[in-house]
Amino acid sequence: MKYAKIISSGIYVPKRKMTNKEFEELTHFQIDPYFSEQIGITHRYISDETETPTYMAAEAAKKALARISMKPEEIDLIIVGTDTPEAISPPDAARVQYLIGASKAEPLAFNVNASCANGALLLDIASRYIALGDYRNVLVIGVYAMTKFLSWKYSWEALFSDGAGALILTADDKPGYLGSVSRCDGSWWYNWGIYMGAGTMNLNGFERGLHKLDLRAAYPATVNEEGWPILINKLMEKCNFTKEEIGMIFFTQVRKKTIITVMEKLQLPVEKAHMVMDKFGYTGSACVYMAYDDAFEQGKLKDMEGKVIIFLTSGVGFQQVAVAFRG
Amino acid sequence: MKYAKIISSGIYVPKRKMTNKEFEELTHFQIDPYFSEQIGITHRYISDETETPTYMAAEAAKKALARISMKPEEIDLIIVGTDTPEAISPPDAARVQYLIGASKAEPLAFNVNASCANGALLLDIASRYIALGDYRNVLVIGVYAMTKFLSWKYSWEALFSDGAGALILTADDKPGYLGSVSRCDGSWWYNWGIYMGAGTMNLNGFERGLHKLDLRAAYPATVNEEGWPILINKLMEKCNFTKEEIGMIFFTQVRKKTIITVMEKLQLPVEKAHMVMDKFGYTGSACVYMAYDDAFEQGKLKDMEGKVIIFLTSGVGFQQVAVAFRG
Repeated sequence: MKYAKIISSGIYVPKRKMTNKEFEELTHFQIDPYFSEQIGITHRYISDETETPTYMAAEAAKKALARISMKPEEIDLIIVGTDTPEAISPPDAARVQYLIGASKAEPLAFNVNASCANGALLLDIASRYIALGDYRNVLVIGVYAMTKFLSWKYSWEALFSDGAGALILTADDKPGYLGSVSRCDGSWWYNWGIYMGAGTMNLNGFERGLHKLDLRAAYPATVNEEGWPILINKLMEKCNFTKEEIGMIFFTQVRKKTIITVMEKLQLPVEKAHMVMDKFGYTGSACVYMAYDDAFEQGKLKDMEGKVIIFLTSGVGFQQVAVAFRG
Repeated sequence: MKYAKIISSGIYVPKRKMTNKEFEELTHFQIDPYFSEQIGITHRYISDETETPTYMAAEAAKKALARISMKPEEIDLIIVGTDTPEAISPPDAARVQYLIGASKAEPLAFNVNASCANGALLLDIASRYIALGDYRNVLVIGVYAMTKFLSWKYSWEALFSDGAGALILTADDKPGYLGSVSRCDGSWWYNWGIYMGAGTMNLNGFERGLHKLDLRAAYPATVNEEGWPILINKLMEKCNFTKEEIGMIFFTQVRKKTIITVMEKLQLPVEKAHMVMDKFGYTGSACVYMAYDDAFEQGKLKDMEGKVIIFLTSGVGFQQVAVAFRG
């Protein structure tokens, strides 16, 4: 058996920045000081017409490849995670394969959708491909273009920002990948989403506004505040490591106060949960890879030899996935 | 290491049937005798408003569970493969988890999209989850609601039919799962698809007809006629079995003549490629699971002890995936 190991990262941030003040002027809602202080978000990035999901994903991937001088044809598998796809069909992943210049090498490419739980899930799927020995280098990309689905009339829309994050994993003889835990409860499916699709992608669906992100019933804050510590504890038990061995946790960057509360519950220093919502806003499927890239750039992943790095991601549906790697 | 083994199947076929003659009356195209003879399709099933992707997927899954008296809470993972999803977000899989009554057990559930290559790909992903020993029972479902995206004005639209197929895999100590091969070439991404998504899901996109399945440039017939034998040969080499050991191949049910040609090229009897397009039409992500279920019902999978069963699926993007199981 082989063990997946993260060897590179890259991100893409759209050109246009919108501050909280600009958002307030546009929507006539007052979002500050709440958004800056509780959510941790002071601005967001809005992708333009040319910054499509496959474009942003490919740009992030190219940076991850360039960082380690890896050629696109060395990639054996490309997994794109998003719930804001460029098209209903074909999957974004094939287009990204072409855009990074890998199509002649014909690596497998597919999309996964567990909404914003994609970050940890893609790492888990990639690691299981690598485990059996027949896939060596796997490129995982989370991409988020949620601002393209906003109505710009609700205060909660201030959360969303666009961007892409890519990680490259390779096969190693020692962990690396330790394992994963997950939970999913589909009874929440109708709470929050973009409910246009088969059967509703028609004029009537447009009139009902189904092509826009719709918050029909809020999730209780406890979904993450209570759910995340439980998952971390399960992960430690399943993968046989202690709290003291945890070097870094990358949580879904959806709310600063939630991450602080969860780290307090776990009795872990908050510095071990690197946060980037103040830099990039909330970027859904991309956020934990963007956080990893940012931590790497700041040198915070230098002393991770032997430590455990965790990705814990949550998404509407809902799903929660946590995955652990030894550094 | 554990080996995935297929232990059950179930399908869902929509209530409304449309014959080739009805299609001809509707579209004013003459499709027969070509469609009946070359494609192998004489009728199709059109899902109604209540037969949504998650409904059809859940119905197929319930039949697969009932066949082996398995309870929904015994399922550890649900993977739904489709390129005709019920919504952009959340993924169909979480809703299916709820509809089959598994939500209290909280099994992981996510969507995969490799378009019509989903059939073999989902079996490959499921097998890799089972391989590491921490997931025991996996439910994979392919669902297709493509008629909901048709314009009913092109002759090629006679291909499409709706439906769902579900397989259940479980962990065993011997193969079972042998391995997989794949290829993907994203330079064909713009040929055929439903090109509405992030950036185009607006009134302008609607006016451009992007919410409908669009055939912009046909794939050459050689993509499958030449590609499939190459993949089968690669699969035999990688998984170390001979042509004589092949018990059954389930190909994407897109064209009868292609399957006959491929079997001739492989010098295999055509009876070893069970076909169902004459029964169900072309059902995309669902078709190989529906073919498996049909072969099982006909008793054709009774003498597969020690033989190799292959699933080979192709989809727009494009992707081709083949996976092998020892019976």
